[in-house]
Amino acid sequence: MIIHVKRDAAESNIKTLVSNIEEAGFKVHRSDGERRTIIGLIGDTSKVSENDFKKYSIVDGVYRIQKPYKKANRSFQEDDSVIDISNGVKVGAENFMVCAGPCSVEDLDSTVELAIKLKDAGANSLRGGAFKPRTSPYSFQGLGVEGLKILNEAKKETGLPIVSELMGTDHLDTFVDMVDVIQIGARNMQNFDLLKALGQTDKPIYLKRGMSATIQEWLMSAEYIMAGGNNNVVLVERGIRTFETATRNTLDIQAVPVAQKESHLPIIVDPSHAAGVRYLIPSMAKAAVMAGANGLQIEVHEDPENAWSDGQQCLTPAEFKELMDTINVLLEIEGKTVNKIVQTK
Amino acid sequence: MIIHVKRDAAESNIKTLVSNIEEAGFKVHRSDGERRTIIGLIGDTSKVSENDFKKYSIVDGVYRIQKPYKKANRSFQEDDSVIDISNGVKVGAENFMVCAGPCSVEDLDSTVELAIKLKDAGANSLRGGAFKPRTSPYSFQGLGVEGLKILNEAKKETGLPIVSELMGTDHLDTFVDMVDVIQIGARNMQNFDLLKALGQTDKPIYLKRGMSATIQEWLMSAEYIMAGGNNNVVLVERGIRTFETATRNTLDIQAVPVAQKESHLPIIVDPSHAAGVRYLIPSMAKAAVMAGANGLQIEVHEDPENAWSDGQQCLTPAEFKELMDTINVLLEIEGKTVNKIVQTK
Amino acid sequence: MIIHVKRDAAESNIKTLVSNIEEAGFKVHRSDGERRTIIGLIGDTSKVSENDFKKYSIVDGVYRIQKPYKKANRSFQEDDSVIDISNGVKVGAENFMVCAGPCSVEDLDSTVELAIKLKDAGANSLRGGAFKPRTSPYSFQGLGVEGLKILNEAKKETGLPIVSELMGTDHLDTFVDMVDVIQIGARNMQNFDLLKALGQTDKPIYLKRGMSATIQEWLMSAEYIMAGGNNNVVLVERGIRTFETATRNTLDIQAVPVAQKESHLPIIVDPSHAAGVRYLIPSMAKAAVMAGANGLQIEVHEDPENAWSDGQQCLTPAEFKELMDTINVLLEIEGKTVNKIVQTK
Amino acid sequence: MIIHVKRDAAESNIKTLVSNIEEAGFKVHRSDGERRTIIGLIGDTSKVSENDFKKYSIVDGVYRIQKPYKKANRSFQEDDSVIDISNGVKVGAENFMVCAGPCSVEDLDSTVELAIKLKDAGANSLRGGAFKPRTSPYSFQGLGVEGLKILNEAKKETGLPIVSELMGTDHLDTFVDMVDVIQIGARNMQNFDLLKALGQTDKPIYLKRGMSATIQEWLMSAEYIMAGGNNNVVLVERGIRTFETATRNTLDIQAVPVAQKESHLPIIVDPSHAAGVRYLIPSMAKAAVMAGANGLQIEVHEDPENAWSDGQQCLTPAEFKELMDTINVLLEIEGKTVNKIVQTK
Repeated sequence: MIIHVKRDAAESNIKTLVSNIEEAGFKVHRSDGERRTIIGLIGDTSKVSENDFKKYSIVDGVYRIQKPYKKANRSFQEDDSVIDISNGVKVGAENFMVCAGPCSVEDLDSTVELAIKLKDAGANSLRGGAFKPRTSPYSFQGLGVEGLKILNEAKKETGLPIVSELMGTDHLDTFVDMVDVIQIGARNMQNFDLLKALGQTDKPIYLKRGMSATIQEWLMSAEYIMAGGNNNVVLVERGIRTFETATRNTLDIQAVPVAQKESHLPIIVDPSHAAGVRYLIPSMAKAAVMAGANGLQIEVHEDPENAWSDGQQCLTPAEFKELMDTINVLLEIEGKTVNKIVQTK
Repeated sequence: MIIHVKRDAAESNIKTLVSNIEEAGFKVHRSDGERRTIIGLIGDTSKVSENDFKKYSIVDGVYRIQKPYKKANRSFQEDDSVIDISNGVKVGAENFMVCAGPCSVEDLDSTVELAIKLKDAGANSLRGGAFKPRTSPYSFQGLGVEGLKILNEAKKETGLPIVSELMGTDHLDTFVDMVDVIQIGARNMQNFDLLKALGQTDKPIYLKRGMSATIQEWLMSAEYIMAGGNNNVVLVERGIRTFETATRNTLDIQAVPVAQKESHLPIIVDPSHAAGVRYLIPSMAKAAVMAGANGLQIEVHEDPENAWSDGQQCLTPAEFKELMDTINVLLEIEGKTVNKIVQTK
Repeated sequence: MIIHVKRDAAESNIKTLVSNIEEAGFKVHRSDGERRTIIGLIGDTSKVSENDFKKYSIVDGVYRIQKPYKKANRSFQEDDSVIDISNGVKVGAENFMVCAGPCSVEDLDSTVELAIKLKDAGANSLRGGAFKPRTSPYSFQGLGVEGLKILNEAKKETGLPIVSELMGTDHLDTFVDMVDVIQIGARNMQNFDLLKALGQTDKPIYLKRGMSATIQEWLMSAEYIMAGGNNNVVLVERGIRTFETATRNTLDIQAVPVAQKESHLPIIVDPSHAAGVRYLIPSMAKAAVMAGANGLQIEVHEDPENAWSDGQQCLTPAEFKELMDTINVLLEIEGKTVNKIVQTK
Repeated sequence: MIIHVKRDAAESNIKTLVSNIEEAGFKVHRSDGERRTIIGLIGDTSKVSENDFKKYSIVDGVYRIQKPYKKANRSFQEDDSVIDISNGVKVGAENFMVCAGPCSVEDLDSTVELAIKLKDAGANSLRGGAFKPRTSPYSFQGLGVEGLKILNEAKKETGLPIVSELMGTDHLDTFVDMVDVIQIGARNMQNFDLLKALGQTDKPIYLKRGMSATIQEWLMSAEYIMAGGNNNVVLVERGIRTFETATRNTLDIQAVPVAQKESHLPIIVDPSHAAGVRYLIPSMAKAAVMAGANGLQIEVHEDPENAWSDGQQCLTPAEFKELMDTINVLLEIEGKTVNKIVQTK
């Protein structure tokens, strides 16, 4: 971290600042230029904030060089993390995870039937919403625990690991028991109480990027979970909010290689939520593979026009299968594989 | 709500759509133009979503006319809401609320001493962080319940109602007991589980705008709380995230009159968090008053350079007093008053 | 276009509005609901603006259904436009254009040498800046006409059509004589005087998307050129400005299929300017192909560390060749071809 | 400027970098930490770019400390610039400029009549569009030179200096002859050819902020004009593009004090274009005064419903007068004055 001192700073104030920095455990490298003094901090700055120094009135600017995350940082773990989901499914490095399913779980039969089709088409995990974060209090809020039970029936039938969204700490224990991957939605990416609680489990976590979160803030939220001891974090890019209104969100495809450079954690792409409209999903899914993603999350519904939520951004099973055929060709070019289910009934 | 049907839509599909709309309880106004059919929904559309219709493949666009919120909607309550905080302090209409205090509560003596100065300078409520949402898991996380106790001591001394941030449902009961206003931070604006729980209380809520929330989404979050039965919602504008990096956030000053046009709820402005830097606070506070705000929330610390958090965006008590002198002149022009504390020890 | 009238509007005001609309040449479809009147315009609304009606005080909202562009609109031309560049190079439909070269033209020998390598690696056009739009008045502003002469020498040698940026109307004639494609930079996307002048030529135009331009505004700028009679417009996505600072701009990869749905014009992707950093270019170029782009524009420099501008976002010729090998495999999957140069010296 | 070298950089590469920096005229301060080398540049860095060093593969980051603008920089001129417009009107420091008028000039009589009312209400300059930048090629493009003549008639009558927008270099001479202030629109803020040409005149320039321009980029555009020798630049904040769609743009009110801290140039606020809707103008104009602005630009039309363009964001003369009455009270608090017209017919 480099601190840039104002030109007219009194020597006594500079000395106070320097001694406070040293008390905080850093070595100080002070450089007095013709016009200004610059102070470099030597030591592990991942645990201090720029604001810890901006508050001094003699400070003009603070420039962070070391990233503020450590456990999520590629500099501290060179190799890609590979996270074991269950039933033979892994994500990370050459293991490509394909997660598909309806926005909301609706009923047992349709869910099991769909899961079978998805598995046949090439998915190796099943997503389904049971607790739904809806913008309006008047919208359908999900089947709750009943939805999780239905997903488990589908898992029994197909072996597909289950991914479902948790919205608060209240149902954490239920989720630990009943799902394979706990998904944290974009709106909860900085729900720090929830992140801390997840750090106390060892469940794989899908951590969706907040709609206006920088990649650095996203990795800081991963760090919250990892700081608690749970390293099984999967990043999910699902589009960011920009001025463009032609699409629901702007898929930040560059976030894939950027996150992979900064972090060893796997990153998967959710084109359904980024696009918010069905026709964009296939091209964006293919683009994501070639951008280097470690997986995809895609909404699929047998009959999108009658889906209970988000039908406008669902593929049909047939469209999904057609997409997977191309995806598999691309994965071969990329040297990646979708792990087969190893069901242990 | 107006639904725009694609040009080549088959009549049978249009009929299915129309009958589904009618089943949902709406009257339909169908208009067949030369090239396209347009369908108008007549009835209360606040409880349906655009996506409920976008999912049909024959639909090209859906245009919402009635706003999706009802209890927060100015159309359903013409008069400004006035919310009673406690000890004579109200907010809304001509009642202007001035809330000041440190980012984090640090210790008893400094907090009480500061509260006395703030009251003398013209504040009529005291803010202080006890549970802190910090981007980094390694930053100071607040004193917790101990902090709330200290705030209550300051209230005993000064009569100033207390505003403090709640981060999750776990401590809700404690907050209902110990604070006058529960603040919900920007990062939790769409923590729907938390919003629902707040709806079950009758506490005044400061609902901060999410960093990338539209004004409509913000009002939908207010609606979540109000749908549960708690109408005591105060909107807090604290800056939105944009491309500009010269300031921490961009204060959306236009949001003040826009929210007041759309909703009867009071809106206050927090220039400290928008600016993220001390020198901008006075001019932005004055601008907020003339924009028509119903209150201000300002961070003040006896010694910003030694504040435990966010010292860079704190005024000193003397600076705050100087600012309040001008604010009071402006409030007179605006016909507003800061209610005096009516302490009932 | 649908006009939503305020609830309390007087009948006489509605009648004035209706008769003004009719005078403007539209048929009016008026629908009086229980609470409000809605007015539909029937006719070609591509030449009126929402603001033409928002200015009436009885109007609450105006919803555009027909897009405001016509010549660029896919509805008015179903087939993809194919634009003939020169020397056998086309862009559009299955013709994929690969344009590569240095940010700034520096000298004759290096440019010719590089052009030969680019052609060998698979490029079929040569880009090079002669007039440079630089943020700082103190930065190198390009070689000017001298740069165009050098590019023409390289064309003589290789047959590669030339793409170069024009910054104002002053040099338009020179560009018409000396380049094959006139590039309009992001900062000039709404330089309407320049767009009108381009409409008077028949040169192919690379129209870069403005940094904060919506896809609709971009197509409106294409419409400006086409309204003048020049239909040879190629859209270039080069990243938009968002809150994310990890990359120079955010590549809006979804813009590719969206623009192709809305318009028949070809769209190519420039990953160099979006990323602003070298390591992202290969993955983003591959993603662009699978997103359905009709071409790529990539900065290449023999020795990026000594480039006169933008070296940080250049590939070396060897890196470019390696990338093209994969691109060619992907183009086969997509059913597209890079046309060979048919040089007619 | 501080350059942060990658950890594994070879000493020979560091030496090359250092010697290149020295050749460019800087002294180098090199600091070798335990893990990395940091290089500080000592000298005037306003004429180099971060990218001049990012292009080296051993460089990890470049941090600019000195701002890249010099003539616009408050550090190089402590006192506020005061710009003399004409007829006694100045802008800057305590001189507050009020510029009002129609979006488009329509005809002689209405323009003169309006100008008289505006002067009576307290305006001290007249704006009016003659050449109009319109998003659609099919919209009214302005009366052209005829419009400028009409404005001059209004000036003869009232003495009000004239402000009008120039869209390209073609009509520069005409504007130098016929207007008092040349306005450069948001879309041309980075039309560098135009900025250079303006630098060759000595006309006062209203430089509107680009819709997605940072404050730094805006000041760099001012620097372009000043680098040519014309120091008469007035900054105009007119709203930036964000995700919020409730208003046309987001008025960045913080830009007022930020620009004033970074630069000595005057800054005025245009609430009409930011809001895009009439009802927001009065509150935003008042907020702008208290934010410290040096002037206002407001659209006024005798009959907004029949304005030829932008009627939705115009005040009537009566509304404008009412607003000016409050503005004058606020200016007294701020210690500023609107200069009276000193007409020399």
